[in-house]
Amino acid sequence: MKRLLVVLCFISAFNSSAQSTDDTDKKEIQALLKAQRIAWSDNNIEEFMAGYWKSDSLKFYGSNGVTHGWENTLERYKKAYPTEDHTGKLNFKINAISKISDGAYYVMGEYHLKREVGNADGIFMIILKKIDDEWKIIADTSS
Amino acid sequence: MKRLLVVLCFISAFNSSAQSTDDTDKKEIQALLKAQRIAWSDNNIEEFMAGYWKSDSLKFYGSNGVTHGWENTLERYKKAYPTEDHTGKLNFKINAISKISDGAYYVMGEYHLKREVGNADGIFMIILKKIDDEWKIIADTSS
Repeated sequence: MKRLLVVLCFISAFNSSAQSTDDTDKKEIQALLKAQRIAWSDNNIEEFMAGYWKSDSLKFYGSNGVTHGWENTLERYKKAYPTEDHTGKLNFKINAISKISDGAYYVMGEYHLKREVGNADGIFMIILKKIDDEWKIIADTSS
Repeated sequence: MKRLLVVLCFISAFNSSAQSTDDTDKKEIQALLKAQRIAWSDNNIEEFMAGYWKSDSLKFYGSNGVTHGWENTLERYKKAYPTEDHTGKLNFKINAISKISDGAYYVMGEYHLKREVGNADGIFMIILKKIDDEWKIIADTSS
């Protein structure tokens, strides 16, 4: 009986520890998205790009095909959003944050850009990995 | 010197073994997509759905928001593609297959539906995991 109790306590402690890790992961990912939203709305695309994996293996997928690598993704953003009238004010609606495996998540969400030149809205799915103890977006599909 | 050679051989064997695992993973994922393409083009949505994780945690994200779970995703497909005139003939163009972590990949691609009722084209990103030794799509964003 005692042994059963110990096992149950252990399972319960393990579960709540896993749950709390997942909660922490999700909070950290939400913090990354918040920092991106603020940077973008401040017309600071470089700071916005801090949320992305600084690697040639980063992939951004949009209507114009796959953009490979961090530098090219930055260039793509700068070209598509040349002035602060184009970046505008960004809002996200997060519809799902789900674990893929330890240290990897996906997020499904909507972006809403308020702009003088015309609002822009769409959906995205991003994949994030914890790299060197920091969450980074390793893949982004936006449309 | 001998030791260095042994170490180099070991590293090289390890790398080529990892490479060959990755190649096998990618081939298996391509086989899954091929099976889906054939099933869809045969108006067999149930068989097409065999590529998806049969779980309430499966998520499909489209213009109408997030569909949760395998059953709801099947219903969504059946409703949106009620007859073989709607399913038509499916082709994929795979633009990237990339590893997230061991046993997890993402795929970026295009779908092209040839149909009498009008063609349909779009892009997607799917996330796949090896579950019980089989690759399954655990998340799908299509637009």
